[in-house]
This record gives sequence, C-alpha cells and structure tokens, in this order.
Amino acid sequence: MASCTIHTAPYSCSISRPAAKAFSLGFHQRHQQLIFFSSGRRSAVVCSAEKTVVIGLAADSGCGKSTFMRRLTSVFGGAAEPPRGGNPDSNTLISDTTTVICLDDYHSLDRTGRKEKGVTALDPRANDFDLMYEQVKAIKDGVAVEKPIYNHVTGLLDPPELIKPPKILVIEGLHPMYDSRVRDLLDFSIYLDISNEVKFAWKIQRDMAERGHSLESIKASIEARKPDFDAYIDPQKQYADAVIEVLPTQLIPDDDEGKVLRVRLIMKEGVKRFAPIYLFDEGSTISWIPCGRKLTCSYPGIKFFYGPETYFSNEVSVVEMDGKFDRLDELIYVESHLSNLSTKFYGEVTQQMLKHSDFPGSNNGTGLFQTIVGLKIRDLYEQIVAERAAASAAAAKV
Amino acid sequence: MASCTIHTAPYSCSISRPAAKAFSLGFHQRHQQLIFFSSGRRSAVVCSAEKTVVIGLAADSGCGKSTFMRRLTSVFGGAAEPPRGGNPDSNTLISDTTTVICLDDYHSLDRTGRKEKGVTALDPRANDFDLMYEQVKAIKDGVAVEKPIYNHVTGLLDPPELIKPPKILVIEGLHPMYDSRVRDLLDFSIYLDISNEVKFAWKIQRDMAERGHSLESIKASIEARKPDFDAYIDPQKQYADAVIEVLPTQLIPDDDEGKVLRVRLIMKEGVKRFAPIYLFDEGSTISWIPCGRKLTCSYPGIKFFYGPETYFSNEVSVVEMDGKFDRLDELIYVESHLSNLSTKFYGEVTQQMLKHSDFPGSNNGTGLFQTIVGLKIRDLYEQIVAERAAASAAAAKV
Repeated sequence: MASCTIHTAPYSCSISRPAAKAFSLGFHQRHQQLIFFSSGRRSAVVCSAEKTVVIGLAADSGCGKSTFMRRLTSVFGGAAEPPRGGNPDSNTLISDTTTVICLDDYHSLDRTGRKEKGVTALDPRANDFDLMYEQVKAIKDGVAVEKPIYNHVTGLLDPPELIKPPKILVIEGLHPMYDSRVRDLLDFSIYLDISNEVKFAWKIQRDMAERGHSLESIKASIEARKPDFDAYIDPQKQYADAVIEVLPTQLIPDDDEGKVLRVRLIMKEGVKRFAPIYLFDEGSTISWIPCGRKLTCSYPGIKFFYGPETYFSNEVSVVEMDGKFDRLDELIYVESHLSNLSTKFYGEVTQQMLKHSDFPGSNNGTGLFQTIVGLKIRDLYEQIVAERAAASAAAAKV
Repeated sequence: MASCTIHTAPYSCSISRPAAKAFSLGFHQRHQQLIFFSSGRRSAVVCSAEKTVVIGLAADSGCGKSTFMRRLTSVFGGAAEPPRGGNPDSNTLISDTTTVICLDDYHSLDRTGRKEKGVTALDPRANDFDLMYEQVKAIKDGVAVEKPIYNHVTGLLDPPELIKPPKILVIEGLHPMYDSRVRDLLDFSIYLDISNEVKFAWKIQRDMAERGHSLESIKASIEARKPDFDAYIDPQKQYADAVIEVLPTQLIPDDDEGKVLRVRLIMKEGVKRFAPIYLFDEGSTISWIPCGRKLTCSYPGIKFFYGPETYFSNEVSVVEMDGKFDRLDELIYVESHLSNLSTKFYGEVTQQMLKHSDFPGSNNGTGLFQTIVGLKIRDLYEQIVAERAAASAAAAKV
C-alpha cells in the first residue's frame, strides 16, 4: 500500500492504495470528504476536514464488548445499528459518530480452515494483520475500505462490506493491540480483563443454565482456549491505556456465584488527552465505604479503592469498585465523589447508567467504568477536534 | 450548699454558700462581676455577664495532660502561668481566658494518709468529691473559691489558693468524670487514653533512660497501679465527648519503641455545640494514605482512617492517624483534607502545631488531635457566648 498525507488546512488529504477492491466516489456531505477513485492504480485521494479517531477494544469472546460498545455509542447520543441494506450477519455497528468493526472480520482462516490447520481463532496465524493494518490506516486517513465479513453463523468469510471513515472508529475483538503497526494507529486503547473465576461463573450461567451444556464441557472448553489466550490475547493488556479488570467480590467470603463483582479501572498515567479519574485526593491511596450514616446500602454493601500502582512497569492509577448498586441514590452519591469524570453536567454518569439499566453490569463496576471510559473517549475526541480547529485557525492566519 | 441562679440580662446572678472559707469582694473589672460577701451566712451574691464554661480532661498521671493544656491555652492566644505571688508549688495554670486546675488538689488524703490507709491516689476514697463538686459548681456560677493545693513535691495538702471564675475552667486530672454531679457540670469532656503498650514504652523512656529506674521496677509500678486504674479511671472514658486514644503504630510490624504512634480521635455524635471533624465524606468509612504522587513521606509513611463506630453503646465518629509528620507540607496537606476543624483561617491547625513544635507529639496524631480538640473547645465557648448575647438581646427587646 502506498500512502502519503498532505495537510492543507482545513482539509487533510491523503492518497492511498488499500487492498480493498472498491471505493466510494464523490463528495461525502457529512464527513466533508472529497473522494476520487482511480481504477488503474486502485488508489484513492481523499480530502477530509477530520481524520478518524481510532479506538481499540480488546477482550475475549463473550466478555461484554458489545454492551460496552452500546454504552460508548450512547454517550455520543446515537443508537448503533448494522449497516443498512447490507449483509444481515455483518458484525459492524454504525451510529452518527462511531463505527464499530469486529476484528473477527480479519480472520484469514474460516472455521473449516482453522480446524484443518489445528489453530484457534485466537492464534495470529488465523488472522490477517497486514489487511487489518492497511484498512485501519486507510480509514484513519479518511479513506473508505471494503472490509471482509466473517460470518459467525456459518463460520465462513462473506463478501466484503463498505466501511466509510467515521468520526470515531472502534476496532473491537481479540487482537486490536497485537500487531504493533495496528497498535500505533490507536488514539486510545482499552482491554477488558475478565478473571478466570468470573469467566467461569459467567459461562456456567450462560452455557449451562441457558444452553444445557455440562459443567465438564464448559471447563474443557475454557481449558482448551487457555494456552492461546495466555499467549496471544492476555499480553495485549500491557499496551492498553485503560484496563477494566473484573474479579470476584471480596465483600462475600469465598463467593463463587459471580453475581457481585470487584471491578478495577486501571488507567495509564501520562497518556495524552486522558486524565485518569480519581477519588477525593489525586495521587493518594484511599479506600472508601460510602455506605454509612448518610447512605445506607443492602448487604454486602459497596467498597471503593483508589490509588497509584504499577502495571507492567507503567505508572497507573486504579479506581476499584466492589459490590453493587441497589438504588439510584447510591449511584449518584458515588458519582458525586469521583473527579475528572469528563461529564458535561452533574449526574451524567448516573443518567447514562439509568438509561441502559437493562444492560448487563448496570448495577456494578463494569457498567460504571464502561460508561466512564465512554465519557473519556468523548472527551479525547473533542480535544482532538478542538486541536485541529485551533491548528486550522492558526494556519489560516499565516 | 444553697444555690440559686437568677438571670437578669445581661447579667446572671447567683447566691451560693460554698464550703470554701473566703471570697473576693467588690467589682471584678475583667469578668464584669459584682461580688458581695455575707459573713454571717458565709454566702456570696455574684452577678456575672458570663457563666464559666467548664471542660473536663481525664487521664492517668504523666500522660501529656499538661502539654494538652498548653496547646489549648495557646489556641485562645495567651500563655498559661501559675498564679502570681502564690504558692510556687501550685498546680494551677492561668491565662487570659482559661484557668486549669488539677484535680489532685482535691485529694482528701495526703501521701502519708494514703500510705496509712493503703489506698492509691486513684482510689475515690483518697479524694473529696463533695468539695470538688461544690467548688466547680461555684466557679461555674461565677463565684470565686478557695481551692486546696496538693503539693506534689512534699505530698502534703498546702493552704488553699483563690480561684476566680475564668471564662473557661478546665479541670484536669484523674477523676473529672467520676462523680456524676461533677460530670453534669461539664460543658465538654475529654479522655486521654494511652494504651498500656505505649504507656510502658513512655515510662521506660522517662524512668529508665532519664531517672535510672530498672525495667523490673517500672513494670512493677505499672502493675501496682493497674487494678485501681481499671476500676476508677478507665471507666470514665465512656462519658467523654472526645477520647484521644494512643496506640502502637500498625505501620511497622511488631513495633515496641513507641516512637511512631497510631492515634484515634473518638468523637461522640449528637453532642450539642460539637460537630465532629471528618475526612472527605461525612458519615462514610475511609482509609487514606496521603503519601503518594503529590506528597512524598519518609518511612513508615502516614495513614489516616475515618468512619462511624460504636463506643460504649454511643454512636461516635473516629478519625485516626498512624505515623508521623516529617515536614510542614505533610501537615498542611493533611489539614487541607480534614473538614469541620473549626479553624478561623486556612492552615490554623498547622500554625498551632508549628508554634509549639518543641512540645511532645507535635509531629504525630497526639499533637494534631489535641490541637483540633482545642479549636473545638474554642468553638464551643464562642457558641455559648453568642447564644448568651442573643438571649440577652432578645430579653432586652421584651
């Protein structure tokens, strides 16, 4: 792929030749893009007022990425839907601001192919990182791409779908931070880290209670995935700007139900445009049980922790919530004591959580921290837009 | 003793007949008092603009009461001195606002008497609670008294000294809350509770290092006092509005040096004119290590705790400090995160602590909480004065 970028304020223009086979042509009203298609060299020239902001979200399958994405989209005010009139099995979700693509679409081997070669979907050999890099790079540069579709129903690779450059592109899946080239394209990265105990409790809940699988088969399927997971997925968390870690509660001794969770939001320090949230006193170490004289909570209560830690040799700030919210007043009380939330008005976190009270995790730290990370991404996006506007204004003055 | 009080705004007048033998006569300029002496019935009529506020401070001997008193006096701006021209062995300390009397002066048995009867100074039988009550009541009602003096040097009861009603009377010693009649006279009460481990470490420091006593003799003297201490002194803490508890540190495993202390300020809830201090969020439970990114502290650091507890069936709030301050910025940082301190300006606690940096405990929780309790007493006193002024103004309008 040949690619170069010419910044001509207020437009940034790029010439690229991605591996995808077709391009949109003309002026894209919403994105203020001019797109030219050159059939001979299969390249496009795109002039865009905005470069796409790219967010990476890594997690194992079935670990709440889609809930997270719905929360994120909601923060921007729109509802995410599959591309209109496209493949009904598309994994893509599009809203006014964001486009979420699933990295399973970059599987180079379909289900049969993986079986034949004896590799799991977690294995890098089952994924096309060159194409992933080229297409994410193209979208970031304002170029629409024809992205493949991995059909989760059939296990086959379907014909590609057109992905136009959105304001924010979220790439979610198993490997958003695996390939260093893709990693370098990310403006912000998140890793959803579900502990084995909780993963096991969730799988039992879903696969045993709802799908009739046996306990043994669930254990076996988790064990079978574990070596590849540990080798290829788990190490990505060291690169994440924010990690949401989901652990069993410490409020109930020996709890293995997985209904009450201890959730930790691990925020890397020194990340541009990302100010970690904190509790009461920035930089100190605090544990806080809000339930007391002013706020009463049911058993087992709620406990927060905040403090500086080291995570894979990086300085991080951690905010932790153990327990669950029973009532609205608990949620707003907690929100009122957190700082740097990047809300636009008092109570916005609570409002977002209430709006989606039917989403999994809306009464615990997973929902809380997903919502907060959503607000942080909005803030990061708005900072980038403001910086560009300032740069354009400065350039216009010259 | 016959006593009645007639409130005639702006003066409150009382007729009393205390057991003491002599009275001042005439107009007391500073206290705006008119004092009449009737020799026939040994009674006095006193008209005072202010009734004396009475504070009780209980603690074992050698547990820092005098340091506490010096801190308290300093909060009111004056220096405390023994009565001018009086007995050089007087235990009394007088400043512009406060008079501190030592309850040892109400010993009914001198050293020889106690030896003969086989009772310690801790035993109520060695103390005259009737006289203590009558004289504290008289002072509270604005009547000067002739208080006995227990001479700690000779172990004898010396001739009495005149105690004029001050704005604030502090009665400090072994039994300020033992007798219910005296207890009922207290506007505020404090108990200094030094744990046995710390008491032992301090005695070793003082009696072994400075006075050449043997370890065995120190142990024996502590053991000898313990039964009476447990029977008569310790139970008073249940009545205290504030308890300062001094314990070994938990920051250094198995520390027995007693140089680093864990100090707890236990504040009774629902006490009129006394709003407990708190850390960050009133009514919740918090532990806080201020040392971190913004504030660095030397080993073993500083740790705070705040939370609601139950103390002798009473609802209390506890603020705890473990560790010691090394530098000014640590002290002001901590002060800035405590609320309800009753300071008159930002940094007043720190200023008071620095002013007396040579006092014992100025770098730890004993000095911090003594200073804070001093500010709380000033606040209580000022509330009482304001209430009286408001009542007088209301009465004048009728």
